[in-house]
Amino acid sequence: MDTQNEPTDDQTTVAELRGLVEDFVAERDWSCYHSPKNLAMSIAMEAAELMEHFQWIDTEESSALADDPERREAAGEELADVVGYCFAMAGALKLDLSQTVRDKMRKNHLKYPAEKYRGRPSYD
Amino acid sequence: MDTQNEPTDDQTTVAELRGLVEDFVAERDWSCYHSPKNLAMSIAMEAAELMEHFQWIDTEESSALADDPERREAAGEELADVVGYCFAMAGALKLDLSQTVRDKMRKNHLKYPAEKYRGRPSYD
Amino acid sequence: MDTQNEPTDDQTTVAELRGLVEDFVAERDWSCYHSPKNLAMSIAMEAAELMEHFQWIDTEESSALADDPERREAAGEELADVVGYCFAMAGALKLDLSQTVRDKMRKNHLKYPAEKYRGRPSYD
Amino acid sequence: MDTQNEPTDDQTTVAELRGLVEDFVAERDWSCYHSPKNLAMSIAMEAAELMEHFQWIDTEESSALADDPERREAAGEELADVVGYCFAMAGALKLDLSQTVRDKMRKNHLKYPAEKYRGRPSYD
Repeated sequence: MDTQNEPTDDQTTVAELRGLVEDFVAERDWSCYHSPKNLAMSIAMEAAELMEHFQWIDTEESSALADDPERREAAGEELADVVGYCFAMAGALKLDLSQTVRDKMRKNHLKYPAEKYRGRPSYD
Repeated sequence: MDTQNEPTDDQTTVAELRGLVEDFVAERDWSCYHSPKNLAMSIAMEAAELMEHFQWIDTEESSALADDPERREAAGEELADVVGYCFAMAGALKLDLSQTVRDKMRKNHLKYPAEKYRGRPSYD
Repeated sequence: MDTQNEPTDDQTTVAELRGLVEDFVAERDWSCYHSPKNLAMSIAMEAAELMEHFQWIDTEESSALADDPERREAAGEELADVVGYCFAMAGALKLDLSQTVRDKMRKNHLKYPAEKYRGRPSYD
Repeated sequence: MDTQNEPTDDQTTVAELRGLVEDFVAERDWSCYHSPKNLAMSIAMEAAELMEHFQWIDTEESSALADDPERREAAGEELADVVGYCFAMAGALKLDLSQTVRDKMRKNHLKYPAEKYRGRPSYD
């Protein structure tokens, strides 16, 4: 892929990226299939396809995968599918994703105070 | 939550939203836990928590949930968790998410021509 | 498939069924890949493949699928994959599955008293 | 838990174990919720809860967990939930699980010849 001249994350609004998915769905009249229930399943299914890339390797090797352009791109495609369905879910739930994420991060800051959780995984 | 004065999706770049998650993780020194393998599991786990909101209702009722502010916000929190881990995964894989999504959507356009797939779910 | 003369669920012990999977794994020296972490991912991935069969249909149509031999068999194959990895997990955790299931069902009886939960889904 | 005197995997038929779950569901009139679509989601959700026990540890540490009675029992409970919903799915699809697993294992033997796949994970 040649993505050199494409807008990057700091040149792209969340709305623009969401729009790509919305247009795609609208052009195919797929919104009737996109109930929140079906979309929740779809997100989980794409998440499972992303896991496939890491199923039999250990955590260390999975980190090294970021330096292998081909495998990184393959995993990136699955990640894009998860994100695409998340955008569709935000649409189906009539949610502004930026506000939803900001709100949740605020709650996370209260739930996981930095001084208490530094260096300790969240499940402790 | 009072999100009325917060930047919306058309006022927020993908990089800004990713930055919220990156700062949160950095402040807690959690990057050592965030191997792609662990993050893929985390995305799938949060996707499952999102599914919980739709487990026993049918597709129609799940669509109506968008008009119930309380349940919509509860589902939105889980959606935010999925998206947050997707951002962490993009970071771990050193991927620009906008370019990754654009690239995948281009492939989807080739794979699912609108005239052929209009009104038919993608699995046909 | 011709399964007419094969032992059925009331003619097969859990140990016999587990043995089929254990032998298969042993013959391929795959036990080194079968850490509980990897198996947990594998169970989730196969569960997602099972969901694929029900992704875009509503609950009612999914029930009707039981009367369509071909689709039922296709879904059954994915179910077998989930169960197979569950057996492998029981082995990796050195668990007797019958005792584990009996024990959990006892807890479920305490957690969900029949008179209180009759006709109401478990999440209420 | 005291499971010393309980029937073990070689003393329990698959039908007996399935019966425990079927009785539990029947006593609560929950079969109306147990469409294959809902059960597929439920299996995936319980699989995610099982993953939680292994989210932040590496594969090696996850193997060691089998020797920690408390954590092993906790993971076992989630495994029992996955298996319980698999039994419910077999019921909803009117499938004999033993025949379904035997049939799939036969296909796996053809798909993954031992001499070719020995010591190599299945995805190669």
